[in-house]
Amino acid sequence: MKWKNTAITKKLRIDYPIIQAGMAGGPTTPELVAAVSNAGGLGTLGAGYMTSESMRIDIEKIRKLTDRPFAVNLFVPENAEIDADKVSNSNRLLRPIREKLHLGDPPAVQQPTLETFRKQLDVVITTQVPVCSFTFGIPDQSIIDELKDRNIRVIGTATTVHEAVLNERAGMEMVVVQGSEAGGHRGTFAVPFAEGMVGVMALIPQTVDAVHIPVIAAGGIMDGRGVLAARILGAEAVQMGTAFLTCLESGISEWQKKLLLNHAETDTVVTAAFSGKPARGIRNEFVKRFDPFAHLFPVYPIQNQLTQDIRKKAGKEKNPDWLSMWAGQGVGMSKECSAAELMEQIIMEIDRFSL
Amino acid sequence: MKWKNTAITKKLRIDYPIIQAGMAGGPTTPELVAAVSNAGGLGTLGAGYMTSESMRIDIEKIRKLTDRPFAVNLFVPENAEIDADKVSNSNRLLRPIREKLHLGDPPAVQQPTLETFRKQLDVVITTQVPVCSFTFGIPDQSIIDELKDRNIRVIGTATTVHEAVLNERAGMEMVVVQGSEAGGHRGTFAVPFAEGMVGVMALIPQTVDAVHIPVIAAGGIMDGRGVLAARILGAEAVQMGTAFLTCLESGISEWQKKLLLNHAETDTVVTAAFSGKPARGIRNEFVKRFDPFAHLFPVYPIQNQLTQDIRKKAGKEKNPDWLSMWAGQGVGMSKECSAAELMEQIIMEIDRFSL
Repeated sequence: MKWKNTAITKKLRIDYPIIQAGMAGGPTTPELVAAVSNAGGLGTLGAGYMTSESMRIDIEKIRKLTDRPFAVNLFVPENAEIDADKVSNSNRLLRPIREKLHLGDPPAVQQPTLETFRKQLDVVITTQVPVCSFTFGIPDQSIIDELKDRNIRVIGTATTVHEAVLNERAGMEMVVVQGSEAGGHRGTFAVPFAEGMVGVMALIPQTVDAVHIPVIAAGGIMDGRGVLAARILGAEAVQMGTAFLTCLESGISEWQKKLLLNHAETDTVVTAAFSGKPARGIRNEFVKRFDPFAHLFPVYPIQNQLTQDIRKKAGKEKNPDWLSMWAGQGVGMSKECSAAELMEQIIMEIDRFSL
Repeated sequence: MKWKNTAITKKLRIDYPIIQAGMAGGPTTPELVAAVSNAGGLGTLGAGYMTSESMRIDIEKIRKLTDRPFAVNLFVPENAEIDADKVSNSNRLLRPIREKLHLGDPPAVQQPTLETFRKQLDVVITTQVPVCSFTFGIPDQSIIDELKDRNIRVIGTATTVHEAVLNERAGMEMVVVQGSEAGGHRGTFAVPFAEGMVGVMALIPQTVDAVHIPVIAAGGIMDGRGVLAARILGAEAVQMGTAFLTCLESGISEWQKKLLLNHAETDTVVTAAFSGKPARGIRNEFVKRFDPFAHLFPVYPIQNQLTQDIRKKAGKEKNPDWLSMWAGQGVGMSKECSAAELMEQIIMEIDRFSL
């Protein structure tokens, strides 16, 4: 079996079917993105939370570091109504933590607008980013067509077979299929969250059997064994987040990398307490205390706004109790190395299987 | 890679590293067990709920149908105190269903005793069953030693790396590692149930890295792709339940097989509402109605006793609403064929990968 030459490596013009996930909020520095692309994979800038200005700066930096293809990941905006009762629930419950961290009044929440997303798309188009991937839903048909017309490859995200089919129907050229093992936010958009918690072993072959576009497996894949297993299950590529999180080029703090390196597969949990949307991360004090109340909190991204300065301050104080530490169930296989070394190890491991 | 010659095929004297799971409560007829063993795998009699008498009868039947090795699976008894309040909660909530099904008063609950387990073990020993696997915990050291002394191979069950290590320390010769995808009861015994919900893709390599005994992967494995992927992840064999559930020899009713063949990966859910212990099955009316109250119900096996005649009657009436239909997340890949055909297909699929 030719593990490295797939429909996806051909379409994306990369050497290996390995995509570094577009983890939003800091980890995907231009250095990380470029290192992965330079090593023959596809680096992804996690631009979900970025302004168009900072996107433009980072894309420029990436281009200075590599002439290989890379991707930008965007969040498809959702209709989020501000529920005043839920906002005040959240602020009331979080107050003791705000006091503990010497934070002032909670920030005023802002209704998300489509404008930010449109500006992000404009950057993708004007800077001619080679690949654009989407999470949290499927953008309007006109957007997909617009990108494809400009020769920008489009990748969707699904957590169920049905969601993958919806991506295919909308014209996505390939789809990331996120298993329940995956770290960070769940990409579920067409079914209740719990129904989208399907393990990679079951999810990938059933999806491959149902769609014609190439499938990218995500969730729990950390090394050559995972990449090859995903290929055997029918995926044409893998997307790895947690594995790149502890790499030297990753933008999370050194003390957070050290913590992640010491966590086990049972230490992560899916919670909506941080952002209003279910996401997998380390079961820390924040999760233990607030996960039971997550149903009282506002939806994403409102709750995300309400916890933002708490997470930021905890980060500054190197306090792991009150920040979100996204990680997948493969966290126990995390390594401390450069992205190039990780890529090289994966390739060596697979070659050892002598396929 | 030699997918079929492993530490486990050698130790168990079987041709292929494929174990049919010991699904308790009816599916594992002597015909199914023997068919799998005759096809070169390891059939397993799910004897968890069986009396020693019926075990003896079935083992005799299996022996008439095959001279190949086979296994018996037993449930390690747990300390289950009868909580009178919870028993009455359960009976009160289930009353409308009992009435709907024209059932009389609920059965009196019985404190489980160690005696049944000891009798089951005695049958395993006196009939010299080749392999004995355990679920729901680790039996006393004396039992493990007794079986090994009599040249009976012992297999444990784990749902986390730590539980696999505990099995190894106790002297188990190999361990089934059950991912979150798996159908039926969760084997979790050393951590809270939710922490043991780890996907196969993440769980197998981390377990393989931590123990020296051979690992058997379970959960979501339905065909050659799954078997080979599990082998790549480091498992020396796989255990498949759902895949054999719709086989011709399986003991579940024909109408239930037909239903399973039409379910998708999102249709299963883990609930403790049926038995008091979390188990994955089809999200039917019973689950929708009672899962929200599962915390009010007594623990396993007390709740199992309280729902037994409901499930039985629903089964007789071919009413899928009120019975437990255990199935894993791979259910969408179920096939209608004989066990021998399923085994043959798997082997052909793998050979096609030309490893």
